[in-house]
Amino acid sequence: MRSVDIILKKRDGGVLEREEIEHFVHGVTSGSWPDYQASALLMAIVLRGMTPEETSHLTDAMIRSGSRVDLSDISGCKVDKHSTGGVGDKSSLIIAPIVAACGAIVPMMSGRGLGHTGGTLDKLESIPGFRTNLSIDETKASLRAVGCALIGQSAAIAPADKKLYALRDVTGTIESIPLISASIMSKKIAEGTDALVLDVKTGAGAFMTAPDDARQLAESLVRIGNAFGVRTQAVITAMDWPIGRAVGNATEVIESIETLKGRGPVDITEQSHDLAERMLVSASVAPDRARAREMVKRAIDSGRAVETFAAIIDRQGGDARVIEDYGRLPKAPREHVVRAGRQGYVTALDARLVGRASVALGAGRDTVDDVIDPGVGIIIKATVGDQVEETDAVLLLQYRDEARLQAALPLLRDAIQIGAAPRPAKDLIIHEVV
Amino acid sequence: MRSVDIILKKRDGGVLEREEIEHFVHGVTSGSWPDYQASALLMAIVLRGMTPEETSHLTDAMIRSGSRVDLSDISGCKVDKHSTGGVGDKSSLIIAPIVAACGAIVPMMSGRGLGHTGGTLDKLESIPGFRTNLSIDETKASLRAVGCALIGQSAAIAPADKKLYALRDVTGTIESIPLISASIMSKKIAEGTDALVLDVKTGAGAFMTAPDDARQLAESLVRIGNAFGVRTQAVITAMDWPIGRAVGNATEVIESIETLKGRGPVDITEQSHDLAERMLVSASVAPDRARAREMVKRAIDSGRAVETFAAIIDRQGGDARVIEDYGRLPKAPREHVVRAGRQGYVTALDARLVGRASVALGAGRDTVDDVIDPGVGIIIKATVGDQVEETDAVLLLQYRDEARLQAALPLLRDAIQIGAAPRPAKDLIIHEVV
Repeated sequence: MRSVDIILKKRDGGVLEREEIEHFVHGVTSGSWPDYQASALLMAIVLRGMTPEETSHLTDAMIRSGSRVDLSDISGCKVDKHSTGGVGDKSSLIIAPIVAACGAIVPMMSGRGLGHTGGTLDKLESIPGFRTNLSIDETKASLRAVGCALIGQSAAIAPADKKLYALRDVTGTIESIPLISASIMSKKIAEGTDALVLDVKTGAGAFMTAPDDARQLAESLVRIGNAFGVRTQAVITAMDWPIGRAVGNATEVIESIETLKGRGPVDITEQSHDLAERMLVSASVAPDRARAREMVKRAIDSGRAVETFAAIIDRQGGDARVIEDYGRLPKAPREHVVRAGRQGYVTALDARLVGRASVALGAGRDTVDDVIDPGVGIIIKATVGDQVEETDAVLLLQYRDEARLQAALPLLRDAIQIGAAPRPAKDLIIHEVV
Repeated sequence: MRSVDIILKKRDGGVLEREEIEHFVHGVTSGSWPDYQASALLMAIVLRGMTPEETSHLTDAMIRSGSRVDLSDISGCKVDKHSTGGVGDKSSLIIAPIVAACGAIVPMMSGRGLGHTGGTLDKLESIPGFRTNLSIDETKASLRAVGCALIGQSAAIAPADKKLYALRDVTGTIESIPLISASIMSKKIAEGTDALVLDVKTGAGAFMTAPDDARQLAESLVRIGNAFGVRTQAVITAMDWPIGRAVGNATEVIESIETLKGRGPVDITEQSHDLAERMLVSASVAPDRARAREMVKRAIDSGRAVETFAAIIDRQGGDARVIEDYGRLPKAPREHVVRAGRQGYVTALDARLVGRASVALGAGRDTVDDVIDPGVGIIIKATVGDQVEETDAVLLLQYRDEARLQAALPLLRDAIQIGAAPRPAKDLIIHEVV
């Protein structure tokens, strides 16, 4: 089998056989496919597409490029949640403790922020001492002890994905539903979960800006998950403006703890409860949504949800005292207020621009080698729909470096729109379920 | 300007600006564009296409990646011919001496065989001592002395093409009219010719098998040539079965000399005279085709054409005695006859398969590092349209190595078709002129 013949077949719109896809994935992992052949095939896939069957073969080959974790020796149903990435989206930090507190097992493998979106690992690591690089034995011990482990992708899980993602990033071949599907699902399936709830974002701050693309991606992800024996469902949610009131790392940890205490903003509270309830039903911990809702409410009201988060932090080497003392979290020394500048209503707060501004302040990465500043961030004082006076604060920036502030400000000025009339209300959760 | 943004633009069907194309071509030449980015863009170009303007910018950037030869200090009109590659196509060896004998200047830069097609340089180098790697000064001296130089592409001419061609060969990105056009024309324009006649092959043994693709390529080549100030025309000719009766290297030199002596097969004689006449008119050496036809006839009949070939061989270090003594050319020691096997008419002799069989015997290259055996080849004893008895020879193979013979034979058995009725006559030259 010649690599160039596989490229030619896809270039001309053909359907690749399982063996051809395996040749490619194994070749990329072993190095026998040079990068220039891999990138030519990736571009042909972006432009010619892949059938569901090809996407399934690709996912399978990527799973088998590494090891598939076996969690069968841990009793209880394992359930995970994955989001395609947003701005201000700290729902993983809220959902994992709630669902574990309700009795499901949550082996949650998350990523780091790249581009304008934040990453769960970066947020967790703003807690002093918190370790996300647990070994498989440590992960299992955590799952047994506290019902949850919040970890990064180990090198043993889908190594082909790591290589392909790095290549796609620099060759203009990210935007492909089959490639994105195989990338996400190969990792989720390999981590050993039994059930999975996917949060596919759409809108200005999402990777899939168009709702139709988001729906196609959601369908593709669900199809693959179920084909591989993981009970999978997807919710399509809006990401036009940031969710919650905090964008950054330590600042999002604080908002997550507040939400676990029942004092969070309405939008992030509703969205994380919705996803947690789906996970509980999917894991058969709750028989139906009504019962799941009661369980979540009780976990919050009783304090068990926030206690579980404290136990997770403690288990993973972090300082659990942050739960009661936010002063133990890093905080940038300076503040800058962005004001409305005119009277009216906030009609837009572009999530992508706010995300890019937070990266400019140091909360995210432009390249994988960038170092995160956990103490910088953006607090949203007035969000879309709120009425403002000319001198009212819209955003409060926590920053360390003047030059970085100056880089962020023009982005934020573009992100904020103030209009004379309020924008028609729009549900944050587009209640589309796949 | 970021490379990935240029890739994304073409991927999404955009039209690249001159600066973006230059960034790519200069980057490939200097190494600042890694191969994996170049191949991703090449695949996007194959699938999205390029406008005539983009193709022109690409050609220009490739010309300017090296030097453009200045032949203005040589008096007389410079005219060249280029073929897109065929099987048994020795017309360059016939045309160059004829046109030079008639008074035009022929700076002919040719290539080597790759894949199933033969290469002019390989054929010439089967003449003992013949050198094709002339310096620019030696080339000019030859043009002044004998009106012709038959040379290879120097490293100084369009170095970007050399890099891109090697990459395209292994990434499935050869088949693209804009990329093929820029590759051919950048070299032809850089070599300093004033006029150019193109022979675009179509059919089973051509790179462009479909006539419609051949026409599009011809139009693209002519458009570029004229835009860069080179008087250009193209003829589309059939390459369904080999042209002439010899396929190989030394064996094709013999057939070329026979044709220069007026004793060649009808098809190769007609096609090379047709192209030579067009070149003479294009170079303004002849006022019209009728006068050009007379000039060519006289050059052959007087012996001046074959004498000019002898002078060229001598000038380039070769043994000109081959003109009268074919025994001075290499010849493989063994012969094998492929017979008809049934009575009837030869209805097909697939040029691609015959070409691949000649490569299998050692007359061509599968990879650029393969070494040519100049003495092996295939003599066509019965071609398409000929009537044959069961035991009649269709092909005579001149070979050296038994294993290579065995590799060639199955290809040839597939190449030959014998039918009960003759195939309807078909002109070798499809008289399509662009």
